[in-house]
Parts: sequence; C-alpha cells; structure tokens
Amino acid sequence: MSKLRPNGVVAILTDFGTVDHFVGVVKGKILQELKAGQMPLFIDITHEIPPQNIVAGALKLKFSYKYFPKGTIFLAIVDPGVGSQRRAIVVETEDYFFVGPDNGLFSLVLMETKPRVVYEILTEIVLKPPYSATFHGRDLFAPAVALLLCGVPLSEWAKIIDSNELVSLDIYEPEPISGGYRLQIIDIDRFGNLITNLSQELLGERKAKVVINGQEIRIVRTYSDAERGEVVALFSSEGLLEIAVREGSAKEFFGQKLPEIFVFINS
Amino acid sequence: MSKLRPNGVVAILTDFGTVDHFVGVVKGKILQELKAGQMPLFIDITHEIPPQNIVAGALKLKFSYKYFPKGTIFLAIVDPGVGSQRRAIVVETEDYFFVGPDNGLFSLVLMETKPRVVYEILTEIVLKPPYSATFHGRDLFAPAVALLLCGVPLSEWAKIIDSNELVSLDIYEPEPISGGYRLQIIDIDRFGNLITNLSQELLGERKAKVVINGQEIRIVRTYSDAERGEVVALFSSEGLLEIAVREGSAKEFFGQKLPEIFVFINS
Amino acid sequence: MSKLRPNGVVAILTDFGTVDHFVGVVKGKILQELKAGQMPLFIDITHEIPPQNIVAGALKLKFSYKYFPKGTIFLAIVDPGVGSQRRAIVVETEDYFFVGPDNGLFSLVLMETKPRVVYEILTEIVLKPPYSATFHGRDLFAPAVALLLCGVPLSEWAKIIDSNELVSLDIYEPEPISGGYRLQIIDIDRFGNLITNLSQELLGERKAKVVINGQEIRIVRTYSDAERGEVVALFSSEGLLEIAVREGSAKEFFGQKLPEIFVFINS
Repeated sequence: MSKLRPNGVVAILTDFGTVDHFVGVVKGKILQELKAGQMPLFIDITHEIPPQNIVAGALKLKFSYKYFPKGTIFLAIVDPGVGSQRRAIVVETEDYFFVGPDNGLFSLVLMETKPRVVYEILTEIVLKPPYSATFHGRDLFAPAVALLLCGVPLSEWAKIIDSNELVSLDIYEPEPISGGYRLQIIDIDRFGNLITNLSQELLGERKAKVVINGQEIRIVRTYSDAERGEVVALFSSEGLLEIAVREGSAKEFFGQKLPEIFVFINS
Repeated sequence: MSKLRPNGVVAILTDFGTVDHFVGVVKGKILQELKAGQMPLFIDITHEIPPQNIVAGALKLKFSYKYFPKGTIFLAIVDPGVGSQRRAIVVETEDYFFVGPDNGLFSLVLMETKPRVVYEILTEIVLKPPYSATFHGRDLFAPAVALLLCGVPLSEWAKIIDSNELVSLDIYEPEPISGGYRLQIIDIDRFGNLITNLSQELLGERKAKVVINGQEIRIVRTYSDAERGEVVALFSSEGLLEIAVREGSAKEFFGQKLPEIFVFINS
Repeated sequence: MSKLRPNGVVAILTDFGTVDHFVGVVKGKILQELKAGQMPLFIDITHEIPPQNIVAGALKLKFSYKYFPKGTIFLAIVDPGVGSQRRAIVVETEDYFFVGPDNGLFSLVLMETKPRVVYEILTEIVLKPPYSATFHGRDLFAPAVALLLCGVPLSEWAKIIDSNELVSLDIYEPEPISGGYRLQIIDIDRFGNLITNLSQELLGERKAKVVINGQEIRIVRTYSDAERGEVVALFSSEGLLEIAVREGSAKEFFGQKLPEIFVFINS
C-alpha cells in the first residue's frame, strides 16, 4: 500500500458565505503556516452551504470529490458544534484527504469510498493560543491542512481512531411503496432543478414512469429534448433523478409547496 | 505566424452560480486530466451570468478578455442547448483560446478580434463514458481545456471548421433617430449603473446631450464630478455611455421601469 | 532594517461584487503586466463590501490582514472618490504591502501596525492611456501591484509622503456611561451574529454583565454553550463582543430594529 501524498490542491467547502472575510482568512492562515515558496492551489467548491446544514454540505461534497486529482485535500467546514467536544478529524482514503469536524459531513462520501485511516486531530498540539472558541476554520483546521501540505507525519499531531466511531448521517433512500417509490427532494440547484434521492443505479434497467402531483411527466435524456416550459424528469449529472423545466425553473414553477413525486416501475 | 501556446491561465465565465458545486467540479476535472505537477491559474470572471442568458455572457466576455495576458484560455459556459446537436468549439485568435458551446457566446468578442482557426471538438473522442447529458462543463469542456494545457495537438481531438459558420448574436447598435440616437440598456452593474449601447467610438468628437425620460442630464467625466444624488451620464470603463447616480444607484432611482434614453448631437 | 519583498500572494478586498467582470479583469490586468511565467496567488478576502462603504471595508481588512504570510500584498478598493484628486497609495509596514485609495480604508489596520514607508503612486507614470476615469482598479491599482510583484523600485513610480497626512476614519470606541459602556453594532456577519465595538482587551479581566433591550443575557465561551434559540453574548474570533442566537440568527431575531446593548462592569 503506497503512501498517499498531498498534490498541493486544497478544495474547500464551507457554510461561511462570501460576504465576510472568513474564507480568505482560512486561506491566509494556511499560507502563513507553510514554508516560504510553497504555493498550494485553492479550489472553492462552494461557501454557500446553508448555515449549519450538515446534510447539504455532505451532499455537495459527495457530488464533487471524485472529480479531483489523487492527493487532493478536502477542507470541509459546516460546524454547528464548534468549540464543543465534537472531534476534529483527518480521513485518508485511497485517493484523498478529508479535514473537518466529525459530525457526519464526510459520511456520504465514506459510503462510496472506504476510509483507509481515520485520525483525530490533537487540539492540544494544533490549536495554538491565542485561539478563538468559534473559528476553528482559522485556528485549527487551517493549521492542520498546512501540516499535511508540509508533510509533517500525522503521528506527531493526530491519533488514529476507529472509523466505525465516526458520526454518520441517515441516508435518504427513496421510500418503497406498492409498485414503486416515493421520492424526496434533497437539493435544489441554481437553475431551480429539483434533485431527488432516486439514483439511476437503484432504478437500473427497469422502465419507470414519473408522477408529479398526480400527473405523469416525460423522462428525457437532456434539457433540450423537452419543449420550452415543459416539466420533465431526467437524470442529473450526479446520476440522480431531477425535475426540470426547459428554459425555466422547476422551483419557481411549483412555488412554495414542493411537489409530491412518485416513480412507478412498469411491469 | 508563430504558434500560440497556453500560458497556464484559465479564465472562466459561466451561469453556474456559486451556490452549487458546479464551478469547483469543472476546475477539479481540469486538474484531474493534467499531468502531475501541472498547476494552472484559474481566474473567475463571473459565474453569475443570469441562467441561460447568452447575450449577457457574451457582453461580459467582451468587456474582459483583452485585459488578460497572451495565451490565456477562456472557458465560457452559458449553454441552454447542452446535450443537443449544438457544436462544442475552440476558437484560436491572435492572442487567446476560447472554449465553449457554439451558440453566439463568443460572437461579440470575435467582432473585435478575428478568429485565426476555429475547431469543433470531437465529442466522440473527448467525451468519455460515463458522461452526463446535462453537464458538458465537467465532461466535455474541462477535458478539452486540459488537452490544450497539456499541449496535445488539436488535430487529435478536434477538426477545423469554417469560422463563417459560427452562430452569431444580433448586435445592439443604438437606433438612429432624427438628430441622434435612441439608446438601449444592455447591462446593469453591481453599483446600479445602467450601461447603454452607445460607444464613445460611435460618438467620436461630436458634442452631444443626453435626455433621460424627457430631462437633459449632464455628461461628466467621473462619478466624483457629480453632486451627491445627481443623475448623470458618463462613459463607462468599457467605453459605453452609462447612467449613474453619485453615491446612489440609478437602478433604484428609476425603479422597475427602465428609463427612455436619447442622445442628441449638437449641431 | 531588512527589505520587505513580495511573497507572490495578492489578497484582494473590494466592493465590486461578483456579478460583474470587475474582479476578474483586475486579476487579468495584473497578470498581463507581469513577466512571462510569473504566477501570483490571488486570495479573495471578500468583494461584497457594501458599495462605497469605506468603514466596512476597513473593518474587514483589519479582521483579516494579520493571518497572511509576510510579504503579502493587500489590494483594497472601496473607492467612491475614483477619478477625483484623492491619492492612490502604497503603504509598507513591517510585514505587508497595502495598495489602494487614500480614503481611510487602511486606517484601522494602521492603528495596529505602524507604516514604515508610505508612497503616493505617480498616476502620470502608472496610469497608461487609454484609461478609464471610473475603473482605477484595472487601470491604476492593478499595474501598481504588478510593479511591486516585478520588483520595480518604488522610487521609479511613486513618491514618499508623510504618513501623518493619510486620511483616517473615526474610531468607534464604546461610549462610556455610568457603570459601563453603551455599545455600537459595527458589523453583522453571514450567520446573523451582531458584532459590537467592545473588545476583549478593553474589558480586560473585569467581570461584566451584558444587557440587551433591557434584559440581561449570558456571556458564554462558544455557541455550543448556549441553549438552542438562546440569545447570548460571546467574544468573536476577532476579539469583539458579539450577540448570537444558537442555531439561529440574532439579526433575524431582532428584526429591523437593531437592539440597544449595554455592558455594566461588576464591582
């Protein structure tokens, strides 16, 4: 088993927003802790996770990580428990490092790719006074990322823990009903598409029909197969069934009340 | 004719927004396809082009490209036709590469700087399964940018096409009327300035007066030449006539109903 | 006194927003003026300073700069006086360079870290025609940053001025009242926390109680010490007293009318 090394890419996902200075300060702090001349490449995944919404953060991370090169460090911070006893962790998988709080944020990723080693960051070593009780992104996680980038052995600033003890989130599988599934909307994207929890994998080769608020809609391959303004279902770029309106927004179409969505298997 | 080489800078303009993971994933995918150690410099132009608004994207790109160094790759994705038969292209000009859909997004730029060679990306080569029918930014354009950055000859993954066949947008020139022009508002910026389609070039040395909703306003050189709260006209940093309110927002001043703007040439 | 050299990091704070192309163009312009192969690392602190709000910009900069490595160039542009006679400056401190307009934007930083040398940028040298009277970010400050990065001596494009002549902002110290202080809210962050002007330093070891709209609230160490929905006071990551609601937003809790906040010293 060859040793995984950081490739210099740090991909960051938070609920910090971009109105404040928080994200810039986290990056500054990482740079401050590196050796002179070391230049990582920061990639922002998103900082617009709704405040303290761990599930939303876990989903976006699951949708993203596999498109990054081997050795990427993912720094993910959605951390309502900051300052409490929740653990700070580093998870090493076959291809990646994940750094952040142990609150389930990584659990959807870790259903797809097994952890190789899980570490708890030793705060008594990494958190240097004076530090804030509310901004571990700057005072704890940024230095941890810098230690990784500098190649300081994890044994010096973290201890191995049991991966089965990690906090994990409930998975939202579609609810089986007679003849099919009742779906849940787990995300709404910028274009107003409603992303459901039915994966292409679960459906497999079975033919299905999609019923939304009592009306059947077409399953198409891509947006441009729909008529302008038509409500359709299609598989998203993440392999999940989504509801879309061609050249419009399904979110606006359905308004405040999210629609009920069923999938029935053709037999 | 010396060969244009990428300089490592990738400037990105999309309608993806920053709430989702889309932009981060596109960058991740580019990195994933590069050789170990290759580190491009990503510059975000904007990701807040209104969804599927090709004209807005084309304008912002036209306002931006010439300030980047020679060899920059522009990756521009506003792509309502994703998954349809619309072509994916690479346009090489004297100084730059442009990568994106052939839907007019580059046409305003190409009125100013002639294409040297135009290529259609061979999707059967670049689009590797499994791929999504709705996210060509990740599955088609990102790999194309990586191929450019790696120096893989375009002849291996694209074919030359006729630049006269590119989709182009209608240009919005000011409408000539008796004694002057009726202007159109083509953009509203963050500060609420209303950007019109009258260029300093078109006006030339001629003296003019600006009439907005029936009232003449002053033409000033810069915001600080206006009184606080005064509505004035001035030439924007892109050389277009704009309507501004000193220490205020012209957009808020005029509210929902955009004003009628005329320019009369003094004779 | 050893000479301070740029480390290649350019941290940028503006009121430009991210909807337009302005920030991308400033970065492009810096790159365009560098030597081939020179690759700075751009860090966005924030671009969402409310338009022309110099105080907000000065605060966010003060909250951020000290977490960046020695040699960082801070480019800060909140510039209502663009095109007027306001000076364009470079401030060199022990550890950093600051580039931007002389309108008080740097004054809160310079209360903490003394300027070593202050320069006025010679616009007749740095501002190259054709230039815009309204976009000095692109036409003046970006070239100045590039000159710094290229190591061109400041004596060639700037002149030393007296640091006592710099424009400075009024400082918002808490107003002393009988038995304590009346606080002011100086910032509201993404999470709806209300940041006041009472620093932990000013309070020192003294015990205090916080009264908000006539009701005493608890001072806690971290968000997770509060009950869900409880209004509490705690010291922010910048060492200022803030009002927070656990798993909620103090901003939403108090609505339109900002609360009155007093601190009384226990004697």
